[in-house]
Amino acid sequence: MAVPSNLDIAQKASLKPIEDVAGAMGLGSHLLEPYGRNVMKISLDAIEELADRPRAKYVVVSAITPTPLGEGKTTTTVGLGQGLTRIGKPAVVAIRQASMGPALGIKGGAAGGGYSQVLPMEKLNLHLTGDMHAVTAAHNQLAAMVDSHLFHGNQLGLDPDNITWRRVLDVNDRALRNIVIGLGGRADGVTRQTGFDITAASEVMATLALTTGLDDLRSRLGRIVVGYTHDGEPVTAEALRAAGVMTVLLREAIKPNLLQTCENTPALVHCGPFGNIATGNSSVVADLIALHAGEFVVTEAGFGADMGAERFFNIKCRTSGQAPDAGVVVATVRALKAHSGKYRIVAGRPLPPELFDENPDDVATGAANLRKQIDNMRLHGVSPVVAINAFPTDHRSEYRVIEEIAAEMGARCAVSTHFAEGGAGAAELAEAVAEAAAEPSQFRLLYPDEATLPEKIETIATKVYGADGVTYSPQAKASLETYRKAGFGQLPICMAKTHLSLSSDPTLKGAPTGWTLPVREVRASVGAGFVYPICGEMRTMPGLGSDPAAAHIDIDEHGQTVGLF
Amino acid sequence: MAVPSNLDIAQKASLKPIEDVAGAMGLGSHLLEPYGRNVMKISLDAIEELADRPRAKYVVVSAITPTPLGEGKTTTTVGLGQGLTRIGKPAVVAIRQASMGPALGIKGGAAGGGYSQVLPMEKLNLHLTGDMHAVTAAHNQLAAMVDSHLFHGNQLGLDPDNITWRRVLDVNDRALRNIVIGLGGRADGVTRQTGFDITAASEVMATLALTTGLDDLRSRLGRIVVGYTHDGEPVTAEALRAAGVMTVLLREAIKPNLLQTCENTPALVHCGPFGNIATGNSSVVADLIALHAGEFVVTEAGFGADMGAERFFNIKCRTSGQAPDAGVVVATVRALKAHSGKYRIVAGRPLPPELFDENPDDVATGAANLRKQIDNMRLHGVSPVVAINAFPTDHRSEYRVIEEIAAEMGARCAVSTHFAEGGAGAAELAEAVAEAAAEPSQFRLLYPDEATLPEKIETIATKVYGADGVTYSPQAKASLETYRKAGFGQLPICMAKTHLSLSSDPTLKGAPTGWTLPVREVRASVGAGFVYPICGEMRTMPGLGSDPAAAHIDIDEHGQTVGLF
Repeated sequence: MAVPSNLDIAQKASLKPIEDVAGAMGLGSHLLEPYGRNVMKISLDAIEELADRPRAKYVVVSAITPTPLGEGKTTTTVGLGQGLTRIGKPAVVAIRQASMGPALGIKGGAAGGGYSQVLPMEKLNLHLTGDMHAVTAAHNQLAAMVDSHLFHGNQLGLDPDNITWRRVLDVNDRALRNIVIGLGGRADGVTRQTGFDITAASEVMATLALTTGLDDLRSRLGRIVVGYTHDGEPVTAEALRAAGVMTVLLREAIKPNLLQTCENTPALVHCGPFGNIATGNSSVVADLIALHAGEFVVTEAGFGADMGAERFFNIKCRTSGQAPDAGVVVATVRALKAHSGKYRIVAGRPLPPELFDENPDDVATGAANLRKQIDNMRLHGVSPVVAINAFPTDHRSEYRVIEEIAAEMGARCAVSTHFAEGGAGAAELAEAVAEAAAEPSQFRLLYPDEATLPEKIETIATKVYGADGVTYSPQAKASLETYRKAGFGQLPICMAKTHLSLSSDPTLKGAPTGWTLPVREVRASVGAGFVYPICGEMRTMPGLGSDPAAAHIDIDEHGQTVGLF
Repeated sequence: MAVPSNLDIAQKASLKPIEDVAGAMGLGSHLLEPYGRNVMKISLDAIEELADRPRAKYVVVSAITPTPLGEGKTTTTVGLGQGLTRIGKPAVVAIRQASMGPALGIKGGAAGGGYSQVLPMEKLNLHLTGDMHAVTAAHNQLAAMVDSHLFHGNQLGLDPDNITWRRVLDVNDRALRNIVIGLGGRADGVTRQTGFDITAASEVMATLALTTGLDDLRSRLGRIVVGYTHDGEPVTAEALRAAGVMTVLLREAIKPNLLQTCENTPALVHCGPFGNIATGNSSVVADLIALHAGEFVVTEAGFGADMGAERFFNIKCRTSGQAPDAGVVVATVRALKAHSGKYRIVAGRPLPPELFDENPDDVATGAANLRKQIDNMRLHGVSPVVAINAFPTDHRSEYRVIEEIAAEMGARCAVSTHFAEGGAGAAELAEAVAEAAAEPSQFRLLYPDEATLPEKIETIATKVYGADGVTYSPQAKASLETYRKAGFGQLPICMAKTHLSLSSDPTLKGAPTGWTLPVREVRASVGAGFVYPICGEMRTMPGLGSDPAAAHIDIDEHGQTVGLF
């Protein structure tokens, strides 16, 4: 049975009044501010007001190492939320806001898909309530104050060659990656080299995602390091007198946005930190509200369990103090086949047709990756559930292989057809997740705050990625030493590594062994609260293809939007 | 009597539910979308739905040539709206959205002041409903598509040295005025020189302000010229396949925002095109709604009557087909004294103390400027009303001089104390405006569409500015010829001239004679629909001072915003 297009399903879905969706979460109207039709912002007062209500079970949805196409993690998150609600366990879904740049670049939104979407998807994918733009504004206000400081005499003694704060825009624009600013005359600023990242990669975004409230946000923003003096001393946003205005610019953006799924399940959509160099997880404050607004919270962690889930556990949960009750590992037949190493999948090109042939053996070969990602949940004491995200081209024999491996590993497993069937298709998965979450939580962080930065890096590399060890460039070593001296040693680690392999080499499939993790460079997001070692080339500003999604988006003769995903 | 601070008045004002404000305008709830507390967007369907209701009187508020401090045009606009409502003539105020960059640069918002403010002023001055950010996004999406086109083979044959489309951000950041992009490797785009303007200076903003609806916006955006081929042919946003996505990015931003004054008068706040190089007027669509939603519409035109009002008449009214019924010329004692040429007023420095001495003679000397600006209203067949914006340091004898000059010119005149007293203080002004507007409209455009571009420029220069003639640089001449050939000759003119003098020399006060207007350069905003000759240095990206407003904005221990204006 063919599933209609996302936009078709979205436009035909019957939405509940959003205040009713909020009401079902126990949110009174004094906590709500409507933002256009079918979207509301929720006051952070809700955290305290709901605190006495029972705590929900907290479920994180991650995945095996994905192909470049993604394996439907958002769709599964939404579908599972709908499925839990259907089996009588009202759930709240918590996901990231889409980054507009990529949404207009490679065709595809970030609102889920098929009958497991968050609506209104046009809003979710474009602007929403302007949070992304507020992050851009706060980030660039700080940048303007940095360059203005240089221009007006540089009292703080910033080394112009050691300014780490770049600028951001929510657009795919490769020409802005490396730029020279301050050209022209003396009145046009100080000339120096810098660049733009995409807004999702802004430390302000990561900070907003990890903060627990407005005061905390104010303090974190003040701690942001924009660069160093000639003596190597960090210079902060506080020293530049920028943290106050940045906080004020973010005072609406800190409030989570309430939308709903196409089955009217509440969906909090809030923050979208980049998965490459930041946490790739939606906001702490959204989860803190959701955790007392239903029986289950289903949230997504970007990329595979080695990346998003590891950061969810060791950064997001460390910050929020919340312990997850179950961890879903989304797997697809096609991705497991690809992990056999026999198929090449390239984004934007047709899939190799032999990928669709019935071939349980290739699934079994590729399942090494699944095993490792299940282990990665266990490593943190979290009950794993394998969610097989069903595609029409799958074969029953292939599912059987996955089910057997899960059983062998002691993990629950279910096939989920939420894309084609919505929550009804995710009912079996929902039951499995509910069982797993009913077990007493054994959650544990992978490393203590007190471990040294290299110890933390090596723990993640060897235990989560399966590396033999870690090597550091001289530059990386020097940075680690700088950060230790500056007092950043207690921060957790956010590894910037390819998401296309458990290793740092995107071409290595399955569960690679016999390799070491090369750390090329180390940076610190002191405001957000993590240190990020960079292993390999990390793009922080995407480019547009020759035929981008943007070129197909338009209005029709009735003024309706067309061509959107 | 000392007037409390703007923020104090704003925080103590008693706001009506915004849906009641809308209801008083005849707007049903199906036309409204709330955007946070006390702000709504109005669907453009309102234009058609209200069309059968009686048409309001249309009043434009302009000024004499201001000092760098401004003479309270927004405050007078708001006060007059309140005053008219108080004398039994329900009015709607229509003003521009604040540009956030300057609001965070030089201390001062754009919501009016004292007891004549539009509220919530924190929202008006920061983000509002995100329209400014949507303009930024649409503008920069086009820029990304321009550079992506160069990168992917440049099929349209764009001359990289003749790309006129820059990028924009709503921030004061001088270091972005002149930049080189596309540095790095081959994958990082094509290297070329360009820069950022402030978002208010975006042609997209001017286009949004002048459009009459979504389809019209789509067509205008398609006509935007981003640069030229090596043969000098214009390349458009349509050719780059960007106009559709730009329209979709602006589909919320095209809807006017409804707020209210501190006396609950409806206030439409929509678009903020730069006064320097664009129209400096709020949106056509807001006025089209307001014109059938009350007995009076009071809208503001940026800068003096030679600048904002001239553009209001010859660009905005030409586009909308609407004729104004009265034109207010705001005058202050201090500005008229400054026009005597005896005082030097510099923004950010204390005023010369002798400016406050009783001195009707200096007012009389400076009044040459007032005479000319009254004439500029008459030139367009519009009944002029002089509004003396009262300051506590003024003297009655000084008012008398102004009143005599107005009487001599046959213009109505009133002293207005709206800043200190709100609408009650503007009642006399409101009566004068109501009388002027009751006269049959004699409105006429200054030049026909068919006049050549040089004829239009010369008409404005000689008739409105009082110049003896116009000189053109060779570059300006060449551009005029290019535009004629490209078919842009029928467009109106938006003169980019200093607002601090009737002449092109900001140091010449009063009503200078015996000078010629030098046109250095000519550019075309084909999407917005005007050609703009540049006379003198025009800054399109401000910078921050050493102690910017931003450095004083923060949250207090209760989470309240402090330091905002």
